[in-house]
Amino acid sequence: MPRSVVRALAPYKAGTSIGEVRERFGLERIVKLASNENPLGSSPKALAALAHLEGLHLYLDDAHLELKTALAGRYGLSAENVVLGHGSNELVGLIAEMLLEPGREAVMATPSFQLYRLATLVRGAAAVEVPLVEGKHDLEAMLAAVTERTALMFLCDPNNPTGSALDRSQWETLLTRLPSHVTLVIDRAYSEYMDADAPDVTAFIQRRPKTLVLRTMSKIYGLASLRVGYGFGDTESIGWLDRIRLPFNVSLPAALGARGALDDDAFVRRSIEVNEAGKAYLGAAFARLGLRAYPTQANFFAVEVPVEATRAYEALLERGIIVRSGDALHMPGRLRVTIGIPEENRAFIAALEELLVQWRG
Amino acid sequence: MPRSVVRALAPYKAGTSIGEVRERFGLERIVKLASNENPLGSSPKALAALAHLEGLHLYLDDAHLELKTALAGRYGLSAENVVLGHGSNELVGLIAEMLLEPGREAVMATPSFQLYRLATLVRGAAAVEVPLVEGKHDLEAMLAAVTERTALMFLCDPNNPTGSALDRSQWETLLTRLPSHVTLVIDRAYSEYMDADAPDVTAFIQRRPKTLVLRTMSKIYGLASLRVGYGFGDTESIGWLDRIRLPFNVSLPAALGARGALDDDAFVRRSIEVNEAGKAYLGAAFARLGLRAYPTQANFFAVEVPVEATRAYEALLERGIIVRSGDALHMPGRLRVTIGIPEENRAFIAALEELLVQWRG
Repeated sequence: MPRSVVRALAPYKAGTSIGEVRERFGLERIVKLASNENPLGSSPKALAALAHLEGLHLYLDDAHLELKTALAGRYGLSAENVVLGHGSNELVGLIAEMLLEPGREAVMATPSFQLYRLATLVRGAAAVEVPLVEGKHDLEAMLAAVTERTALMFLCDPNNPTGSALDRSQWETLLTRLPSHVTLVIDRAYSEYMDADAPDVTAFIQRRPKTLVLRTMSKIYGLASLRVGYGFGDTESIGWLDRIRLPFNVSLPAALGARGALDDDAFVRRSIEVNEAGKAYLGAAFARLGLRAYPTQANFFAVEVPVEATRAYEALLERGIIVRSGDALHMPGRLRVTIGIPEENRAFIAALEELLVQWRG
Repeated sequence: MPRSVVRALAPYKAGTSIGEVRERFGLERIVKLASNENPLGSSPKALAALAHLEGLHLYLDDAHLELKTALAGRYGLSAENVVLGHGSNELVGLIAEMLLEPGREAVMATPSFQLYRLATLVRGAAAVEVPLVEGKHDLEAMLAAVTERTALMFLCDPNNPTGSALDRSQWETLLTRLPSHVTLVIDRAYSEYMDADAPDVTAFIQRRPKTLVLRTMSKIYGLASLRVGYGFGDTESIGWLDRIRLPFNVSLPAALGARGALDDDAFVRRSIEVNEAGKAYLGAAFARLGLRAYPTQANFFAVEVPVEATRAYEALLERGIIVRSGDALHMPGRLRVTIGIPEENRAFIAALEELLVQWRG
C-alpha cells in the first residue's frame, strides 16, 4: 500500500502539447504559448555540442566539474557551490527531500510554481500557502507564516505564473527578518529575462547560509527537453543535495548541451531582445483591448479575460492557440501566455480580439 | 537542518572513470571493466535516432505512449503496465518513495545492488539485509525476514555483484510464499545476458499484483549515459509510480535513443555472442589460474583474489585495468569484473596472471 501522502496526491498536469491540439481540431498551424519555452528554439552552440554524441555506452563522469566550474565562475563562486539537476524541477524535489518530513512546514505563495506544493506534500510536510496580492508576493504575510516548524520558504522570482519580482528593499527585508533555521529557495528560472537592474540574488548565498538559488537551461537557452537545471548555495547545503541526488542525475546530452549553451551570449541577447519587443507589443495590445495584465519580468504574461479562464483557453485552442488556463494554475479569471515571436504574438492577439467581440457581445 | 536520515547517509561511489586513471598514472591504454557497460558501444540504431535532435526547446510529450507501447508489446502487456525512469536507478528510488517511511522495512540481499539500501535509508525505513550464500540469494532466510512491517522486497536477478539468478522452483517458492502485502521488485538490469532458458519473470506481474520488474537501456543497449530504464507492473502500482515521478523524468534524447535501440535485435544478438565468448574465456582462465568465480548469468564475474580486494584493485589500476573492488561492494576478497571484448579480457587476464605470481610469491 502506498504511503498515505502518496495516495492523496493529484497528478501533475503539464501544458497541452501541439500534437494533442493538432489531433483534436485537425489544425495545421498551431501556436504554442503555453509553457514559457524560447520561441527562437535552442541555442545553436548547444546543438553544435550535441552533434557528435560519443561514449553513450559508458557511465558519464558524474562530477561534472567543468560544467559546474563554468557556472560558478560567472558569479565568483566555486564548483562546490553548485548542484546540477534534471531540470531545476529535480532540485525542488531534492531540497524538499533534504529538509521536509511530517511535522515540518514549507512556506510558499499561491499562485506560484505548483511543484513546490507537490514536493512538500509528497514528503508528508505541510504546505503553507500565502496568497499573492495583485500578482505579487505578500512578504509580510509570508514572514508571518514562518514558525519553528518551517524548514523551507520557496520564492519564485519572477513568480510563475504572474511575472512579478521582488525589489531590492523587499529582499533586504526578507534577508534581515527570515529566521536562520529556514532554508530560502529563490527560484530564478526566468532570471535572464528580468529587467537589467534586477537584484543579484546569487550574491545572497554569501551573505546568508541556507540560501539556494535555482536556475535552468530549459527557458532562455531553449533546452527544455534535455533536462538541466542548476542550483547555487553554500557548500554545506550543496553538499547535502549532492549526497541525496540520484547518481548520474544529469545525462551526457544534457551536460554537453548545457556546456555549449553557456557560451552562447549572442543567443541569449537575441532572445532577450525578442522577448522585450514581444512584451511591449502584448502589453500595448492588452491595454488597447482593455485587458488587465500584471507587469512582468519574465517571458510570459498573466492577463485577465472577461470570461472563465478555461472557456477562454478552450476557445483559443480551437483557433490553434495554446495558452494555459489560470484555472489550472490557481489563477482564475486569467490566462498565462508565453511571449512569442512577432507572428505568434500577432496570431494570439488577433484570435483574442475576435473572441472578445463574442464574449462582450 | 537536513532530516536526520539524510545526515546519516554515506555518499554513493560510482566506479573509477577512465579519465581519473589516465590522469593518476599517466597511462595511455586503459581497459575499463568496472561498470558492466557494453564493450561494443551503443546500439547503432540508437545513435541513428539521435543524429537529428529537434525541438529541444519544447517540453517533450511526457506520456511517451509510443515507447511504452513498444516495450509493453514485447511481453503482451499494455502501456499502462509500463513506467519509465531516468535509468532503473530512478525507479528504485520511486518505489521506495511510494512505499517506505519510518516504521516500514525493505528486505534485500547483501551483497546486492547498493542503491536498494540507500533508497530505503533515505526514506527513514529499515533495510533488512540478508546475506547471500555462495553468491546466491538465501530465499528461505529472505522469506523468514518478512514481517508485517515489510513493504518491499528487492531481488536483483542476476544479482549484482555476484551474477547468480533464481531458478524456476525458487521463483515458485517465492511467489507462493511471499505475503501479499509485500511489493516484490525484481531488478532485471542484466536480463538480456541471461541463459536462454531463464524464467520469464515479467509473466509474474499478471500472476501476482505488487510485482514490479525493472529493466534498463544502460547495459546491453549501450545507453548508460542517456539514462533510461523502465519498469513493468500491475496498472495500480504503475499508476502510483507515474504519479510521484518527476515530470519529464525521461529526456528527449533518452526517449529517442531508447526507441531506436529497441528495434536493434542484431546489436543485442551480437552483444550476447561477445558476452558468451568472453564468459567462456574468463571462466576457463579463472579455473586455470586457480581462482574461484561464481557462475554468472550477467556480463560480469565476481572472482576471488588471494589478497585484499582493494589491493588487487589498486594493482590492476596501475596497469590500466579498471575493475571494482569487492570491498566497495560488501564482497571482500573478490573483484567484480565486467566481461569485455576479447582484447580487453586478455589484457585483464595477462595483468592478473602477472600479479598472481607476485601475490603468491
